[in-house]
Amino acid sequence: MTADNKASGVSQKTDPGRFFEHFRIGEVIRHATPRTITTGDVALYTALYGPRFAVQSSDAFARSIGYARSPVDDLLVFHVVFGKTVPDISLNAVANLGYAEGRFLRPVYPGDTISTVSEVIGLKENSNRKTGVVYVRSTGYNQNGEAVLAYVRWVMVRKADESAAPTGEHVPQLEKAVAAADLGAAVPALDVGAWSNELAGSRYRFDDYEVGERIDHVDGMTVEEAEQQIATRLYQNTAKVHFDGHAAKDTRFGKRLIYGGVVISLARALSFNGLGNAFHIAAINGGRHVAPLFSGDTVYAWTEVLDKAEVPGRSDVGALRLRTIATKNQPCAAHPYKVGEDMDPSVILDFDYWVLVVR
Amino acid sequence: MTADNKASGVSQKTDPGRFFEHFRIGEVIRHATPRTITTGDVALYTALYGPRFAVQSSDAFARSIGYARSPVDDLLVFHVVFGKTVPDISLNAVANLGYAEGRFLRPVYPGDTISTVSEVIGLKENSNRKTGVVYVRSTGYNQNGEAVLAYVRWVMVRKADESAAPTGEHVPQLEKAVAAADLGAAVPALDVGAWSNELAGSRYRFDDYEVGERIDHVDGMTVEEAEQQIATRLYQNTAKVHFDGHAAKDTRFGKRLIYGGVVISLARALSFNGLGNAFHIAAINGGRHVAPLFSGDTVYAWTEVLDKAEVPGRSDVGALRLRTIATKNQPCAAHPYKVGEDMDPSVILDFDYWVLVVR
Amino acid sequence: MTADNKASGVSQKTDPGRFFEHFRIGEVIRHATPRTITTGDVALYTALYGPRFAVQSSDAFARSIGYARSPVDDLLVFHVVFGKTVPDISLNAVANLGYAEGRFLRPVYPGDTISTVSEVIGLKENSNRKTGVVYVRSTGYNQNGEAVLAYVRWVMVRKADESAAPTGEHVPQLEKAVAAADLGAAVPALDVGAWSNELAGSRYRFDDYEVGERIDHVDGMTVEEAEQQIATRLYQNTAKVHFDGHAAKDTRFGKRLIYGGVVISLARALSFNGLGNAFHIAAINGGRHVAPLFSGDTVYAWTEVLDKAEVPGRSDVGALRLRTIATKNQPCAAHPYKVGEDMDPSVILDFDYWVLVVR
Repeated sequence: MTADNKASGVSQKTDPGRFFEHFRIGEVIRHATPRTITTGDVALYTALYGPRFAVQSSDAFARSIGYARSPVDDLLVFHVVFGKTVPDISLNAVANLGYAEGRFLRPVYPGDTISTVSEVIGLKENSNRKTGVVYVRSTGYNQNGEAVLAYVRWVMVRKADESAAPTGEHVPQLEKAVAAADLGAAVPALDVGAWSNELAGSRYRFDDYEVGERIDHVDGMTVEEAEQQIATRLYQNTAKVHFDGHAAKDTRFGKRLIYGGVVISLARALSFNGLGNAFHIAAINGGRHVAPLFSGDTVYAWTEVLDKAEVPGRSDVGALRLRTIATKNQPCAAHPYKVGEDMDPSVILDFDYWVLVVR
Repeated sequence: MTADNKASGVSQKTDPGRFFEHFRIGEVIRHATPRTITTGDVALYTALYGPRFAVQSSDAFARSIGYARSPVDDLLVFHVVFGKTVPDISLNAVANLGYAEGRFLRPVYPGDTISTVSEVIGLKENSNRKTGVVYVRSTGYNQNGEAVLAYVRWVMVRKADESAAPTGEHVPQLEKAVAAADLGAAVPALDVGAWSNELAGSRYRFDDYEVGERIDHVDGMTVEEAEQQIATRLYQNTAKVHFDGHAAKDTRFGKRLIYGGVVISLARALSFNGLGNAFHIAAINGGRHVAPLFSGDTVYAWTEVLDKAEVPGRSDVGALRLRTIATKNQPCAAHPYKVGEDMDPSVILDFDYWVLVVR
Repeated sequence: MTADNKASGVSQKTDPGRFFEHFRIGEVIRHATPRTITTGDVALYTALYGPRFAVQSSDAFARSIGYARSPVDDLLVFHVVFGKTVPDISLNAVANLGYAEGRFLRPVYPGDTISTVSEVIGLKENSNRKTGVVYVRSTGYNQNGEAVLAYVRWVMVRKADESAAPTGEHVPQLEKAVAAADLGAAVPALDVGAWSNELAGSRYRFDDYEVGERIDHVDGMTVEEAEQQIATRLYQNTAKVHFDGHAAKDTRFGKRLIYGGVVISLARALSFNGLGNAFHIAAINGGRHVAPLFSGDTVYAWTEVLDKAEVPGRSDVGALRLRTIATKNQPCAAHPYKVGEDMDPSVILDFDYWVLVVR
């Protein structure tokens, strides 16, 4: 509080978030508000997106194949870990540019408490000197200090003072894809004999998928403003573009933006139709929010199998590398993706990830 | 996957749902995605409809009268059991025509895992040869393999190939009403002395109701698109008419339809005002979704007591057979039902069921 | 049921709520529908408002400082206790006029069952003889009969019969503020050494706040109709102005009103930004819903520190008396409050309460 403000009683205790010049390479940020994930959160997650994977839906199914009980949906874990970083990393972000090297390291069960720590691993000021790109590796931990998820993301962040010099410059080299040997840490050894295709909702196992195969997930899901707000608050994500309709009127879109994580979760839930036995997201190789989604838009999705891999040491599961494309207001029977060099205008998400499929 | 599609990489793994000619009488379908019902689901159910029955709301109340704890609301069980059947039975349905012989057989508690099996008990092609009626008896089981709910429904389903011959024809004889002797299986012996009218919110016991009595439930509840989507996804019901606003633009209604189960649950919740001690739905004799409900409509309800019955061997509870009528945008003080032979245009639900009332 | 209605079959079992002339001073009303609060309710509360206080969010954090686990948010308890009173106290209310002497007396944990008892402590007919003010002291109890919250509210209630004489007249003397000695009953002795500012999200402790300090909480939150309905039903609050959009068309506002408790909860959640270590609402000194909120409006908030107090016998926490002002569609950097004698037209809530802050 400045002397002047102190006299006037105006508090400076409100956190304005960090600007580009406030980040330092190597800095470690322990984010606020650890979060116990409960069956209440799981119920909301189901109600907001409609996932139907048996492992996450049924304690009985999960136990029969080797889990302690139904694990929390991988993306619910991702959104909670991500949400914690927003007040420190991206409150003054212009855009969330990408993800890489995301690995799910341990199952999360209801009752576990998640907290997040981020390390600044790269900085690069933009040529306009008004913004810069911040690279962070964020790691979610459970109440025992065990890592459950780690991923890199990079965001374009505004500078508070355009004349401020950047504190450093480094663009990290990131893997194009997580190695197959690094998949599966969050999945116990499965009793494949106990896996029921009928209960799981798919008769296709790992061997039935082929590289190059393209799957239209058919169904569409319209997103309402209340749903996206409820979802984003569930993750305690505080990015104001999702919540402040009054301020949004003066933005270039004129309305609230939907959190990109909502699109990822909807696309994943829709992908059940065609990928019912792909019960686990093992890694996130890359992801890009190509275009914004708004309330009233309808999300569709399709998936291409980019690669297949054995998981070293495991005969119970195999890995599929997938590209899932989500569109808005455009069904995906024709697999919309690129038009020449450009993205098809209907595409909103380009998501590259590994899933595990039972063998 | 056809050879041709395989070459092109276009997957056929997406489930298009069954069409009329795919069903066979006697066929047994084990539906996908068993579902553990949790206190999270219960909280959402309360928040979506506002039920106030003490037995389902308070563990302490439920225990005091003889339950292990609060049982899950009967209709939440119904919607979950029903939701599982949609991908196999009614994905290509034109209309959900009716319910019969619905019986609640065992209490469901948070933590129980529900799965559903359906048997095809009837088929009848329509004279237009484009559609047919499929009759199924669906049974929900808990994780111990014990039946918790069984009911019959019949739906009009499209044919994929109009020239296809039906696989059989049979119209099952269904009971007009479940027999009183078949009621109460889901209710433990109650300690009636522990039942507090004050806490239950009604001073009327079984003996206070009379056949022919008509009760206006007074209150109205407007339904929003986000609410109906959240509710329907909670049940993992995948019927696309509820979710795909983009496709809905080209339908005769031009917008999403609200899942009929939402109307049943709202009418039941509203019926608390006048039926507070009718704590359990014991059976569903019949139900018809007379007209569609859309976002922004307001639901009202009234009830007629059709019949009263002793439950054999039980002095703790008696059974009321009720007809609850739900309307849209029409308060029910005048008990709207039929206009001559036709339904009053405000009526959306005609629901015939047994409730148990404490004596 | 009158003989006449009995003959016609028209039931009188629907509860019309009490009117002013039905209340008697000293009357004790035990409200219906005890409610077990679960982690499902907590998840919904988080998703509806976005609170980020570590104590209520993380079992691990709560345990580390001395709680048995995360206590239920104080305002969720308040809304549940309040909701139970609506059918008996305010179904025929014209306006909710104020709160006083609110004290949180015991922590509430998931699994606890809450019921509410109210005593009528004052009555005052209005000079128009059409309405009167009813004062009640409502107390929430847990399943062990221990009081968890007590508060006074007064509401303006319609008379059913304008010619009816009031049953009594008494305007209770209410404390301007709860005494510091009466704060903290719901908070165990804290292990202050275990309190992490980083995890709690604020570096400001009790000693850092000054009387007269004004904190703009910056963020705005737009409220959707679905959200306010879901929230209000979660509390089993039955006030029809929040739910019946059809009837609302004929009111002076022409639309549904948002439950005032939604505004209180949003303001409290927003206040995290500046008051992150103010983890507990210990008392409600007064509160006034200055103007109505409607769907689509955006809520902002700011807070003034009115007073500071030691809590007798406690060195772990100190008390701040706060006035939190919520506005609609008006950011609060300029601390809008009064314009001359009148309230600033953007103000919707004037809330005077004690919080505890870790030392």
